[in-house]
Amino acid sequence: MTRRLVVVGGDAAGMSAAATARRRDRSLEIVAFERGEHTSYAACGIPYLLAGDLDEPEHLVARSPAEHRKRGIDLHTHHEVEAIDTTARTVTVRDLRTGDARTEHYDDLMLGTGSVAVRPAWPGVDADGVHTVKTLAGAIELQRRLTDRPPARAVVVGGGYIGVEVAEALVRRGIETALVDLAPAPMVTFDADMGARVAAALARAGVELHLGVVVEGIVIRDGAASGVIAGGEAVAGELVVLGIGVRPQTALARAAGVAVGATGGIVCDPRMRTSVTNVWAAGDCVESFHRVTEHMINVPLGTHANKQGVVAGTNIAGGYARFPGVIGTAITRFMDTEIARTGCNEREARDAGFDYVSVVTDTHTLPGYFPGHSPITVKLVAERYTARLLGGQIIGGPGAGKRIDTLATAIWNGMTVGDLMMSDLAYAPPFSPVWDPVQTAARQMIGSLARD
Amino acid sequence: MTRRLVVVGGDAAGMSAAATARRRDRSLEIVAFERGEHTSYAACGIPYLLAGDLDEPEHLVARSPAEHRKRGIDLHTHHEVEAIDTTARTVTVRDLRTGDARTEHYDDLMLGTGSVAVRPAWPGVDADGVHTVKTLAGAIELQRRLTDRPPARAVVVGGGYIGVEVAEALVRRGIETALVDLAPAPMVTFDADMGARVAAALARAGVELHLGVVVEGIVIRDGAASGVIAGGEAVAGELVVLGIGVRPQTALARAAGVAVGATGGIVCDPRMRTSVTNVWAAGDCVESFHRVTEHMINVPLGTHANKQGVVAGTNIAGGYARFPGVIGTAITRFMDTEIARTGCNEREARDAGFDYVSVVTDTHTLPGYFPGHSPITVKLVAERYTARLLGGQIIGGPGAGKRIDTLATAIWNGMTVGDLMMSDLAYAPPFSPVWDPVQTAARQMIGSLARD
Repeated sequence: MTRRLVVVGGDAAGMSAAATARRRDRSLEIVAFERGEHTSYAACGIPYLLAGDLDEPEHLVARSPAEHRKRGIDLHTHHEVEAIDTTARTVTVRDLRTGDARTEHYDDLMLGTGSVAVRPAWPGVDADGVHTVKTLAGAIELQRRLTDRPPARAVVVGGGYIGVEVAEALVRRGIETALVDLAPAPMVTFDADMGARVAAALARAGVELHLGVVVEGIVIRDGAASGVIAGGEAVAGELVVLGIGVRPQTALARAAGVAVGATGGIVCDPRMRTSVTNVWAAGDCVESFHRVTEHMINVPLGTHANKQGVVAGTNIAGGYARFPGVIGTAITRFMDTEIARTGCNEREARDAGFDYVSVVTDTHTLPGYFPGHSPITVKLVAERYTARLLGGQIIGGPGAGKRIDTLATAIWNGMTVGDLMMSDLAYAPPFSPVWDPVQTAARQMIGSLARD
Repeated sequence: MTRRLVVVGGDAAGMSAAATARRRDRSLEIVAFERGEHTSYAACGIPYLLAGDLDEPEHLVARSPAEHRKRGIDLHTHHEVEAIDTTARTVTVRDLRTGDARTEHYDDLMLGTGSVAVRPAWPGVDADGVHTVKTLAGAIELQRRLTDRPPARAVVVGGGYIGVEVAEALVRRGIETALVDLAPAPMVTFDADMGARVAAALARAGVELHLGVVVEGIVIRDGAASGVIAGGEAVAGELVVLGIGVRPQTALARAAGVAVGATGGIVCDPRMRTSVTNVWAAGDCVESFHRVTEHMINVPLGTHANKQGVVAGTNIAGGYARFPGVIGTAITRFMDTEIARTGCNEREARDAGFDYVSVVTDTHTLPGYFPGHSPITVKLVAERYTARLLGGQIIGGPGAGKRIDTLATAIWNGMTVGDLMMSDLAYAPPFSPVWDPVQTAARQMIGSLARD
């Protein structure tokens, strides 16, 4: 008898699983339900759609519903899965256009329910002019607003990845922009000394910073947003964009008895099996093993969603694959400032119980004599005594950011600072100083370990 | 009694050792002899000096003789060490300006004698108009020629790193350029399929390619070079630049009984000790352990010279440091084409006795929808059955080349193709597709290993 895979969620995790299972097992019947209109889109590209780097929202769609169907996946958009019966192995699914619900059988169930933008219960938060940028539908709405009724002034709430990226989009559109954040420096996944450099870059571009202040509500005028109240004061802006994080969507899983961890993400083993037999999960809705802290963590990133989806799909189709965990690598930019991190920052190292040392070095991406060199700051965190690298943070000009991959690969493998200093990285003047900036940082840390 | 370190050679290896020893042991007496006029200069920057990216040759000098002296190193330029008496622990040194020779005592002797450009015994090779670009003095001479009497047409002999970089310099100066190489494709440290992509880039820029031909001599007219004879035919050009490699300078060491290996480089242990007590060596003149092939190799690169110099200097001053070997990482560019490699190519893997598989993937540096994405070709070589990465080659547009460091760090650590595919690299649309091109290559290789 034909086995049947039901996929909940038509984005990276669910559809990677579906496509991988499809390729490995042509006999499998695959049915997928997506609540929205779009499938498999690059949510990380939304800020650049808003900035005007892309002409059409459709360019963010890696694979449309029609393309998935052509590849043998019976995909239904505007369908929401409302309940799972793990004993009967059925899901209750509602067609959102007709309102009709029906029951569908599964042999394997793949949960790729993703995450949802946090939208606090502030007074006025649902007013016209308050936007989030989590979904493509929401992005299209905001893009239309920016094009049809461009605001003179906007307020971005949140100084994390999304907040900083949206601030770039607004600045590049010539919109006067204020950024409000709870923390004393933007980019809280970085140490405050590195976050201060991001703050400086924002300020240089004219972004009005309101840091270390709590947002209390939205200012409403004529029924629409006209700013926020933060730290007791009004910050004006006829457009308000919320970028204060996302949380895993796990209500469906919880209701079905699928275990959810302390991080808020669904618990999975390395093969992406949940606590319930024949129920799998991947992407923003799951928690992952952090290889450095050895704690579980929820990291809503397309890279993990894709990899975990491939792992789940391989295993569902009878293959063998394992997801080895994450180390918290992430990158973004604000205008010409590249911002990247991997492993543990100081706070995370401390929270994980490490005895650590850190070093910050300021060098250049290329030799000082070479045209186009730009500043780069590398911060390293390493375990004291063993000198094992625990984390790295990079902020700098063009060419700085992707150097984080060298640190990520070093940390992934448990390299020491000395290993990194002596490793064989590529040098030529158009690419690097003779000591790559990450090696200069390692070298300086060895000096400080020796003096310790 | 004060210990005395004598350093032979005032460039990266010798002066890194001297500077490191100086910092660690203030009581050490350090005397250094340099045959030429310059110290501690970035030879890798010479092609960009020729291209006109730098105004002054002095910009390539990281530390001048006067700066070394100020830091407590008794540096003598225009002094050549002619002989070593390892029993008496003395060197015979000649002042090249006065012609006088004298004997100097050492407790430790550091050899940083470097390499010399290969200059074959072709008829006419010493004629006016035939240049090499190994030393800063030679580069200054060539720069003057290009500025004062710019040739209409030039011939570059050799299609390796130097040849390709000099070809870029000439093309950018508007000089009609021919490139002649013995091999059927340029960049012989790459596999021929990758070298063909470099050939295509050269041809696109208008470089006239003469590949797979043997140079037999220089064409002389009116006492100066007017081209080369290659494969029986004349290739015209009133300027001829030789970029056919370098060889370690070890005559001094050999004469003193210091062991030299089959590679032509001085044999050193990981602490940079030669076969003779209290004699150390580093840089282009030594051979290094290749961590993938587990053979010795001579790699004349500033990165190794600097690191080995630091290791030697640390040990000379009573500290402890080891040089862990090399994996053959190198990078260059031709115009907008970035060219990088690490580990073994197919030929090296075969020669080292590996049973290997390889894969070539063509993707983009950024998502296809993102402005500024450029093509990138990644070739991976891995050990069959274990799937351990043995080597990587990258050719692509801006942003492609430095990704080699991710592969270098992966190979340094013995990662498998599966490890690399699942590792946590940085993703955001301005930096990378959701699967970094090196991970796409790894993913494709897993597919082909599975089918194998």
